[in-house]
Amino acid sequence: MGANDRVRLGMVGGGQGAFIGAVHRIAARLDDMYALICGALSSDPIRAHASAAEIGLEPGRSYGSYIEMFATEQDRSDGMEAVAIVTPNDLHYPVARAALQAGFHVICDKPLATSVAEADELVQLAASVSRIFAVTYNYSGYPMVRQARSMVARGDIGALRVVQVEYPQAWLASPLEVTGQKQAAWRTDPSRSGPGGAIGDIGSHAFHLACFVTGRVPVEILADLSTFVPGRRVDDNAHVLLRFADGARGMLWASQVAHGHENALRLRAYGEAGGL
Amino acid sequence: MGANDRVRLGMVGGGQGAFIGAVHRIAARLDDMYALICGALSSDPIRAHASAAEIGLEPGRSYGSYIEMFATEQDRSDGMEAVAIVTPNDLHYPVARAALQAGFHVICDKPLATSVAEADELVQLAASVSRIFAVTYNYSGYPMVRQARSMVARGDIGALRVVQVEYPQAWLASPLEVTGQKQAAWRTDPSRSGPGGAIGDIGSHAFHLACFVTGRVPVEILADLSTFVPGRRVDDNAHVLLRFADGARGMLWASQVAHGHENALRLRAYGEAGGL
Amino acid sequence: MGANDRVRLGMVGGGQGAFIGAVHRIAARLDDMYALICGALSSDPIRAHASAAEIGLEPGRSYGSYIEMFATEQDRSDGMEAVAIVTPNDLHYPVARAALQAGFHVICDKPLATSVAEADELVQLAASVSRIFAVTYNYSGYPMVRQARSMVARGDIGALRVVQVEYPQAWLASPLEVTGQKQAAWRTDPSRSGPGGAIGDIGSHAFHLACFVTGRVPVEILADLSTFVPGRRVDDNAHVLLRFADGARGMLWASQVAHGHENALRLRAYGEAGGL
Amino acid sequence: MGANDRVRLGMVGGGQGAFIGAVHRIAARLDDMYALICGALSSDPIRAHASAAEIGLEPGRSYGSYIEMFATEQDRSDGMEAVAIVTPNDLHYPVARAALQAGFHVICDKPLATSVAEADELVQLAASVSRIFAVTYNYSGYPMVRQARSMVARGDIGALRVVQVEYPQAWLASPLEVTGQKQAAWRTDPSRSGPGGAIGDIGSHAFHLACFVTGRVPVEILADLSTFVPGRRVDDNAHVLLRFADGARGMLWASQVAHGHENALRLRAYGEAGGL
Repeated sequence: MGANDRVRLGMVGGGQGAFIGAVHRIAARLDDMYALICGALSSDPIRAHASAAEIGLEPGRSYGSYIEMFATEQDRSDGMEAVAIVTPNDLHYPVARAALQAGFHVICDKPLATSVAEADELVQLAASVSRIFAVTYNYSGYPMVRQARSMVARGDIGALRVVQVEYPQAWLASPLEVTGQKQAAWRTDPSRSGPGGAIGDIGSHAFHLACFVTGRVPVEILADLSTFVPGRRVDDNAHVLLRFADGARGMLWASQVAHGHENALRLRAYGEAGGL
Repeated sequence: MGANDRVRLGMVGGGQGAFIGAVHRIAARLDDMYALICGALSSDPIRAHASAAEIGLEPGRSYGSYIEMFATEQDRSDGMEAVAIVTPNDLHYPVARAALQAGFHVICDKPLATSVAEADELVQLAASVSRIFAVTYNYSGYPMVRQARSMVARGDIGALRVVQVEYPQAWLASPLEVTGQKQAAWRTDPSRSGPGGAIGDIGSHAFHLACFVTGRVPVEILADLSTFVPGRRVDDNAHVLLRFADGARGMLWASQVAHGHENALRLRAYGEAGGL
Repeated sequence: MGANDRVRLGMVGGGQGAFIGAVHRIAARLDDMYALICGALSSDPIRAHASAAEIGLEPGRSYGSYIEMFATEQDRSDGMEAVAIVTPNDLHYPVARAALQAGFHVICDKPLATSVAEADELVQLAASVSRIFAVTYNYSGYPMVRQARSMVARGDIGALRVVQVEYPQAWLASPLEVTGQKQAAWRTDPSRSGPGGAIGDIGSHAFHLACFVTGRVPVEILADLSTFVPGRRVDDNAHVLLRFADGARGMLWASQVAHGHENALRLRAYGEAGGL
Repeated sequence: MGANDRVRLGMVGGGQGAFIGAVHRIAARLDDMYALICGALSSDPIRAHASAAEIGLEPGRSYGSYIEMFATEQDRSDGMEAVAIVTPNDLHYPVARAALQAGFHVICDKPLATSVAEADELVQLAASVSRIFAVTYNYSGYPMVRQARSMVARGDIGALRVVQVEYPQAWLASPLEVTGQKQAAWRTDPSRSGPGGAIGDIGSHAFHLACFVTGRVPVEILADLSTFVPGRRVDDNAHVLLRFADGARGMLWASQVAHGHENALRLRAYGEAGGL
């Protein structure tokens, strides 16, 4: 992979104080198939430029807004080809829409959007402009997950019967959001994270993993969402019963108040002939 | 504990081909506080006597029926003091009732009975004759379980929030009952095991453990019982959502079709201040 | 196994304050093939009789000394058939010799004796009187150990190359013997435990396990014995290099000062074709 | 860290068929503090240039030999500042010496050299030219290892008593070197790997880890080196007894014939007050 062959990547979000942007950048460097060449790293232009300097972007490729970045990069012969959207959830939809409309491929963090209508629109838009639209359900990239999916698909465990998936975390067991911690603040603010708390933030990962590995989607769902931390405006624990079209049954548990767990995503699937 | 100080124990059930009777006998010898002195080890008198000889009971203390045993032992000065009932579920109620009426203390395997009405009657009868009535939720005897209960009780994890309990087994993943396997046959026969399959056989253990450790009982329950093995007449998988009076939430999973698990009982409880 | 068919067992040692005697008694009850009918449970007759009462021996079968017990039981038609020797190490040899000479089978705790000469004499004596002489290397009874031995014997791992065995304990990491703790006192007193400390007490288990599983005995040994606790008169840590006749090599580590380990016996064996 | 602030790195070795070079490159990208700008990736110029193209080096910065690279880069204003040496062991010494003499900082893979004399010379040379000379005992970079070292240093486990370190691998359990596998070929060839096999390749890691964490170096060593695979010219298993100046004792085991282990480096240290 020569330097000139790398995909020219831009980033929206991921400035100082952010969490997942740096993870995306490290992942892109690990692969060595992307070159990060521009960014609108914060909605605050001062912070955006400071963040860009810190990670070594050329000053002329640091932008104060994603609108400015899309407009400028669109016109450069060596301009951005794809954009990674690593903002709080409320911006996924408007930024992704603008990026697709400007002709860029999109790598968007989960959850895709904060309503079904927004999600549907993005799906259609991506199809109409023939651009790749990738949602980073990153757990589906692990070799072990891929192998599990293959084993289910080729019938190693026989007809699927039971799926148990869980994603417990501990970090929001106390009202961290009132301390000013930036991650906790936006993730528990419905105007920024969308209506879902734990169910959207990590339940989405657990749900996707269950669907990805088993190769099917539930047809009936019953959820018991709870908020345990007083004053919190979104759920911080979700218990969900799952029913699949072919008779399989499952349970999903996502929690951000489960002391002792950092990111304990775990999937178990049992079929007629075996389990994994 | 001198030999003459040991509790004189009789046993109903637990003959050749049985499973749990031998476990009870080993447990009683480990404690060294019981002397097994008589038995009605099978409903088949031939098998009962052969079984008694095999484990070294005196021939005169092996009985062909529990009715005979209760009547005879009642009149001996060195007669049985307590009886262990280790029969299939359908006999728990009639044997226990007869034992209490004859004045014996009772150690009964779970589930206590096969209907709420039977269970209520036994509770009242035991109280009216002032006899000990013990149901062998054996997991509650483990030191670790006792410690967990104490930790919750003294507030180590703070106000309870989430309880996850599960008891997966694999042994009924295929229709073992049609092969003539004695254990599988009675446990999947509603006339002998009662209406519940997995939920009664092992869900009862999981439920008791959750209640025992947390010191409380759910006020609302929603269960999704499934039967995965074709032709089976009782459930072999149970998914249950739990709601406790004080706002805590939980999930219970009991399965006899979960490949790879032998007796994987597991409880996790999370509170405001910690988890275990 | 009828009551009259059980092996009539006596015990020397194992009174109040002892550790391993109770373990032997529980193991004998688990098997249900022994009936403990007499004992000389302590070298102190008062303590011996109190201990016998506590565990329910008939008063007439509690003896103040093993010499008295052997003489009396020898003459009873329902007398002791085998004796379990669970005393401190220094008594293994004299008690075992007397028992064999009186015609009893012997179950003796490890180490067999405190010198090679004593051990040789016992081996010859047992042969000459045609009595069973069992040394309780109890770890060799575990199903997993038996399976490992079978796997090595039938060539599952191919020609043996490397054996790593270790037995770390923590309990003597501080000078427990000066606090009056009875177990620590005799096990670190060369006049009672023999010249070896950790090497005799637990190194003997590790060594036997390595020999038992691999089916061979080292031909060359180099040991680095250390005493870490100031004032202790026996070793509390042993590092040993092993060389076997067929070119295999090994390491043995036994320690009683390894914080964090209770009884962490562990064996690994590697051959040309596999490891376990 | 701006692009122009990154350390300009060159690499000797690490072309197609090599193993550790790619690991160094990934590690350098993860840190994002290095820019790989040139390389002499193979002693075979054709392979060197093909390898350079594959990883995206500018064609003009791919060299056919390290001698050429050092001479050319020395004169460029934007030339290499540091060189990573990831060749077979026999080249560590000549390449490192040439690099230091040309004024470059050196990052050299272990083992440092194949004789004590060579190692001493490099140490003196690095000091005399005031250049950084780093040997990649990479395990010492793990947070857990750093924490262990800190805990020992501040006395958390008290005075050191016992150190158990081991590094078993399985990959050379069969004569892989005769199949043409490049890694196995040079690592078992004394002319390229130096006189040590397992002891040099992975024993060096285990030894360094033990010294790094405990903060001390053994004063007496006794090693039993074995070669189990017929025809192999270097050791493939090493058992070593360690004695430290302050009375601590240890064992080191390094093996490349231990089936079931990939890279199972493990250190345990026990002191007067605790273990880790």
